[in-house]
Amino acid sequence: MSGVIATYQVYDKNHHLEKKAESIALGLTVGSWTSLPQNDQIQLQKHKGKVLSIREVECEDNIAEYFGHRPTKGFIEIYYPSLNFSLDIPAILTTVFGKLSLDGEIKLVDLNFTDDILKQFPGPKFGISGIREKIDVYDRPLLMSIFKSVIGRDIQYISEELKKQALGGVDLIKDDEILFDTVTSLTERVTQGKKVLQQVYEKTGHKTLYAVNLTGRTYELKEKAKQAAEAGADVFLLNVFSYGIDVLQSLAEDPSIQVPIMAHPAVSGAFSASPIYGIDTGLLLGKLLRVAGADFSLFPSPYGSVALQKETALKIAENLTVQNGLKETFPVPSAGIHPGLVPSLIQDFGIDQVINAGGGIHGHPDGPIGGGNAFREAITATLSGIKLNEYALPDTSLQKALQLWG
Amino acid sequence: MSGVIATYQVYDKNHHLEKKAESIALGLTVGSWTSLPQNDQIQLQKHKGKVLSIREVECEDNIAEYFGHRPTKGFIEIYYPSLNFSLDIPAILTTVFGKLSLDGEIKLVDLNFTDDILKQFPGPKFGISGIREKIDVYDRPLLMSIFKSVIGRDIQYISEELKKQALGGVDLIKDDEILFDTVTSLTERVTQGKKVLQQVYEKTGHKTLYAVNLTGRTYELKEKAKQAAEAGADVFLLNVFSYGIDVLQSLAEDPSIQVPIMAHPAVSGAFSASPIYGIDTGLLLGKLLRVAGADFSLFPSPYGSVALQKETALKIAENLTVQNGLKETFPVPSAGIHPGLVPSLIQDFGIDQVINAGGGIHGHPDGPIGGGNAFREAITATLSGIKLNEYALPDTSLQKALQLWG
Repeated sequence: MSGVIATYQVYDKNHHLEKKAESIALGLTVGSWTSLPQNDQIQLQKHKGKVLSIREVECEDNIAEYFGHRPTKGFIEIYYPSLNFSLDIPAILTTVFGKLSLDGEIKLVDLNFTDDILKQFPGPKFGISGIREKIDVYDRPLLMSIFKSVIGRDIQYISEELKKQALGGVDLIKDDEILFDTVTSLTERVTQGKKVLQQVYEKTGHKTLYAVNLTGRTYELKEKAKQAAEAGADVFLLNVFSYGIDVLQSLAEDPSIQVPIMAHPAVSGAFSASPIYGIDTGLLLGKLLRVAGADFSLFPSPYGSVALQKETALKIAENLTVQNGLKETFPVPSAGIHPGLVPSLIQDFGIDQVINAGGGIHGHPDGPIGGGNAFREAITATLSGIKLNEYALPDTSLQKALQLWG
Repeated sequence: MSGVIATYQVYDKNHHLEKKAESIALGLTVGSWTSLPQNDQIQLQKHKGKVLSIREVECEDNIAEYFGHRPTKGFIEIYYPSLNFSLDIPAILTTVFGKLSLDGEIKLVDLNFTDDILKQFPGPKFGISGIREKIDVYDRPLLMSIFKSVIGRDIQYISEELKKQALGGVDLIKDDEILFDTVTSLTERVTQGKKVLQQVYEKTGHKTLYAVNLTGRTYELKEKAKQAAEAGADVFLLNVFSYGIDVLQSLAEDPSIQVPIMAHPAVSGAFSASPIYGIDTGLLLGKLLRVAGADFSLFPSPYGSVALQKETALKIAENLTVQNGLKETFPVPSAGIHPGLVPSLIQDFGIDQVINAGGGIHGHPDGPIGGGNAFREAITATLSGIKLNEYALPDTSLQKALQLWG
């Protein structure tokens, strides 16, 4: 076999999963079968989709109430031969979930590539190990802070905020995903950012990378990326789902853009939020982003107000890091993160993650420097097996954070 | 005002639409407000999002049952100043529905651009009038047929099928959206297709355009499109939502690609199928495709098994054709179309549409030639105000079609 295996979740009002599965397998490949002449059947056999498995499960009560009837719920696995499509994400998505996405109560919950197909995709250019080498930190989660309220601000403001955050000891600082090249330009932020972070490094010996938001028209991104790379960009933040996953892949596999890419989940909720329709979060923010070459994937943490279910967040992280021949992508569980959550974060996501905070750094009583310090203390404590409230000495950044956020 | 106005549908479990609206307007622009120093407030005033309206409506019973509680349902309009983003679809989508798409029970139901912003977008390069000029047909809906079961077929098979369809008098023939450049190449299909359609034209005097599926890697599409245009491509079919709406725009506004673009809705259901999450179908397949430059937009008709609600399909068509300073996009209500539906199609969508059939042409007792003829007769009858069963003479293609499909 050479191809992709798609797993669908369906709610079938006709209560006939076998028929549904067969109609998908044929409808999305050779179209019809039993009516075909023998000769055509022989010729087209290798293009035919195949139903691999059908598994019926119980339909949830609230979903039955929503439909006003109780459909048959099930999971269907279908194999699509690679002969049918070119080896790119748009062709694969169109094949497995093109018109099917419009066909009632169906959700694409997983995609598995046979090894020969998976090999055709680049995966992360740097991956977790490559990023760790850049920062020279190997034994703890990385720490990232997010700019807060930077819309409309000039380069001076941004430089000052960048400096404060770096002084708190964070490893990465990322642009807001809604920061475009209006008041400041990409190159300006890269150049100024580099200067500021170098000053901090000379003062503290701590290295911080700046993830700048790569934005603009699709067909200008590569050129912009190359220019920013030449100006010394550390990391690109990319709103993958506002563009297309293939754009991420093209940037990731371009040998002249030697810069890691951080995928932001903006707009992805439009695909993945419904339990009945769309594309599974673990597939979208986990597997597909890794296959296409994201070095980091941000996703809602299970702790905050904009939250994923814990199971979903863990599935994303697993897809980003499970051994599959590609480099690993850094999981970045985000939103609602404060220092008191570090033990949970490390218990749930392990060492190979980026702990990412906005309000949890900027909202610290001592500002972003105190916020960064508090996180770093919390990480050290947790990795030493000491409870945070035991580790936190009076008047330290960590103690102040725990008092504020618990 | 210069900017975009987003309308959201929310189901608010906190029963506080004003607070929700205000938090969106600030959260997606300047971040916070009341805590800002006076100086910052003055500087940032012009970047601040504004709540324009809030309208509470009744929550549907089945949706309350789905949630297990009765949230407050409402529509919220928010204005985002154009100062905050670059003038491209990815930036606009990220601004108005980036992280918000991940934030619970919220759906983006409309986007309105102020005139100065709308003017920055190309709209269709040809539009309905330009397409009509190409085909030289002004007084009736156009008729399109879809290749059936072409996966795995060689160029000879495709040429023969193309010929049969053209002989039935259709104005357009489109590739299957899951046909990629595997067995046949784009250029091969364009070159051979042109030859075949020219032969038919010389025989019948009827002109037919061939919409070839433009596929492959994002950054190769422009070059492929240029080559295919040089080879004489009539129309490009594009799986817009497998790529990104900005890719459509870039192709549409490239002056060296003088070929109309037909947008296929593949994968769009992943965004639009849920009534609670995602992006409204009328916005996605109507307004945004037109703004970005689609000359045709295919969408599920209200009549078939893969169907939209009639109201939704009409909304798409309205968005594609309402006067807004851009050229008009041809509505193409698709799926489940047979000749007996022509009166309903014309009543619902008017003259300026493309009537699009797959099975309704190929499944005709006399094959695609009979199918095309039956549709053309049905169109003539309807436009003459004659009922189909009165118009259809014994043994005509139309009569056979009516017998089969009703």
